[in-house]
Amino acid sequence: MLKDEVRTKSYRDSIYQNGHLFKDKVVLDVGCGTSILSMFAVKAGAKHVIGVDMSTIIEKAKEIVELNGMSDKITLLQGKMEEVVLPYDKVDIIISEWMGYFLLYESMLDTVLYARDKYLVKDGLIFPDKATIFAAGIEDGDYKEEKIGFWDNVWGFDYTPLKQTAMTEPLVDTVDLKAVVTDPSPIVTLDLYTCTTADLAFRVPYKLKARRSDFVHAIIAWFDIEFSACHKPIRFSTGPHTKYTHWKQTVFYLRDVLTVEEGEEIVGELENKPSEKNHRDLDITISYKLNTDDMHRQASGTGMYKMC
Amino acid sequence: MLKDEVRTKSYRDSIYQNGHLFKDKVVLDVGCGTSILSMFAVKAGAKHVIGVDMSTIIEKAKEIVELNGMSDKITLLQGKMEEVVLPYDKVDIIISEWMGYFLLYESMLDTVLYARDKYLVKDGLIFPDKATIFAAGIEDGDYKEEKIGFWDNVWGFDYTPLKQTAMTEPLVDTVDLKAVVTDPSPIVTLDLYTCTTADLAFRVPYKLKARRSDFVHAIIAWFDIEFSACHKPIRFSTGPHTKYTHWKQTVFYLRDVLTVEEGEEIVGELENKPSEKNHRDLDITISYKLNTDDMHRQASGTGMYKMC
Repeated sequence: MLKDEVRTKSYRDSIYQNGHLFKDKVVLDVGCGTSILSMFAVKAGAKHVIGVDMSTIIEKAKEIVELNGMSDKITLLQGKMEEVVLPYDKVDIIISEWMGYFLLYESMLDTVLYARDKYLVKDGLIFPDKATIFAAGIEDGDYKEEKIGFWDNVWGFDYTPLKQTAMTEPLVDTVDLKAVVTDPSPIVTLDLYTCTTADLAFRVPYKLKARRSDFVHAIIAWFDIEFSACHKPIRFSTGPHTKYTHWKQTVFYLRDVLTVEEGEEIVGELENKPSEKNHRDLDITISYKLNTDDMHRQASGTGMYKMC
Repeated sequence: MLKDEVRTKSYRDSIYQNGHLFKDKVVLDVGCGTSILSMFAVKAGAKHVIGVDMSTIIEKAKEIVELNGMSDKITLLQGKMEEVVLPYDKVDIIISEWMGYFLLYESMLDTVLYARDKYLVKDGLIFPDKATIFAAGIEDGDYKEEKIGFWDNVWGFDYTPLKQTAMTEPLVDTVDLKAVVTDPSPIVTLDLYTCTTADLAFRVPYKLKARRSDFVHAIIAWFDIEFSACHKPIRFSTGPHTKYTHWKQTVFYLRDVLTVEEGEEIVGELENKPSEKNHRDLDITISYKLNTDDMHRQASGTGMYKMC
């Protein structure tokens, strides 16, 4: 968190620029870590901040809060959100940095929603309050060959059983903007005021329009985050068109190489759900079909991926 | 393993170039993973290879061995070395890729030694059979400031409690050869035919002679591996003077910055032992003293580090 400039600066700006929202308010920091957001909130004028984290990092957070003279303003609690006893029945604002890779992998969003339902006053605020997953198609021939083709001949042996495994593992990596072949397309938006844990499993159609004639080896996903309660809304993106964040992008290789012409569309559905075996893993299914009249280029299929 | 050229090539060469040693022998591959070393041994003429691994990767290994037509030559067993039942009472050769960061962090060496004592015939061979840890002093001002100094002011707050934590965590990273200020010095050598688990905890003196006048911010460690049973001995190093390996080097920052003149020596002791709390963690203590008559540059201290 601390070393990710884009992320921490967005949180800082959204809090510091909105002192009028934080002034004299009770704030809950879900998954507070070293308490950086809690300290931002105190500086912005909060009456009191409660930071909750399961990790032993809370001991370091206490030292840091003490050193920075905020011990009377920040209460730090180690434990599960569902189990800790807060010094207030209700809070005015929830702040949290809960996002994982592909937004939802190992994310703390369910904990934030729990805290919202139990503690947030009516008309209370959530920072951030909106998250949108986007997708696009990319040309990635060289890297796909390196990552996937590698298994065809490993030191003289046939390792294709691991090729199948490699295909099902989405890759978290930075994608060069030049590799993006299609327009980006929003897949799903989560409104943190209204969404429920059920909304974290979804199956949605998508449509990706080719910007140029090229090959498409993979579909990538990323997310944008919005603090819309701010006087002047603050957003940041984790897409390939903007500054590096530690979330990078998530790459899903397709079995087929799609040969697309400018203006053609790749259509399909993207399904995401927590794995039945392990609720922290994600099962992601992406179907794809290239809409073209050219029968030599027609292609469709379905990829099943597991983030674990 | 598979994508680390230096490592896998060294194992492959040491096995392929020594068919006379492997011919008709029973071989045990400790921690076989995807079974690459087992397949090397079969190609080199082994009568039979037993591969043992705790991980479910063994299921993939079975598919791979089958695909490569070696199912009758390789027996793959999932489980702990201490618990599996081998199809042979004794083996002629043990092969294993057991090394971890700093050689011993999360290493499987104790398992290899167990297998040696229980299964290796008298005069049996071990591939590899020798490992030496080296140390050197480096100039690393910029990076130390970035890694350690960072905590002095984090987004406007005093985070020095995390500075202490950062100092105790050795950094696994690639070190530029130009940063190396002293001669390298061997710290400890493990002979796999004779060493015992007790030898994995050690406290040894070291002496690092400055090659040039410069500053020393850290002591780094790496290791060399030798297959001395080979007809023509094969070695590889994980030091800063040679090709990249995934082990990189391990960097221990010193509290002091040592201002050394060419020819002067940094002397001290390096102690390594498994952590009492968690046997898989390492507690490493490095004392250091700059031997100089210049009282303005005299410096000494002790750093305590934890690899976990």
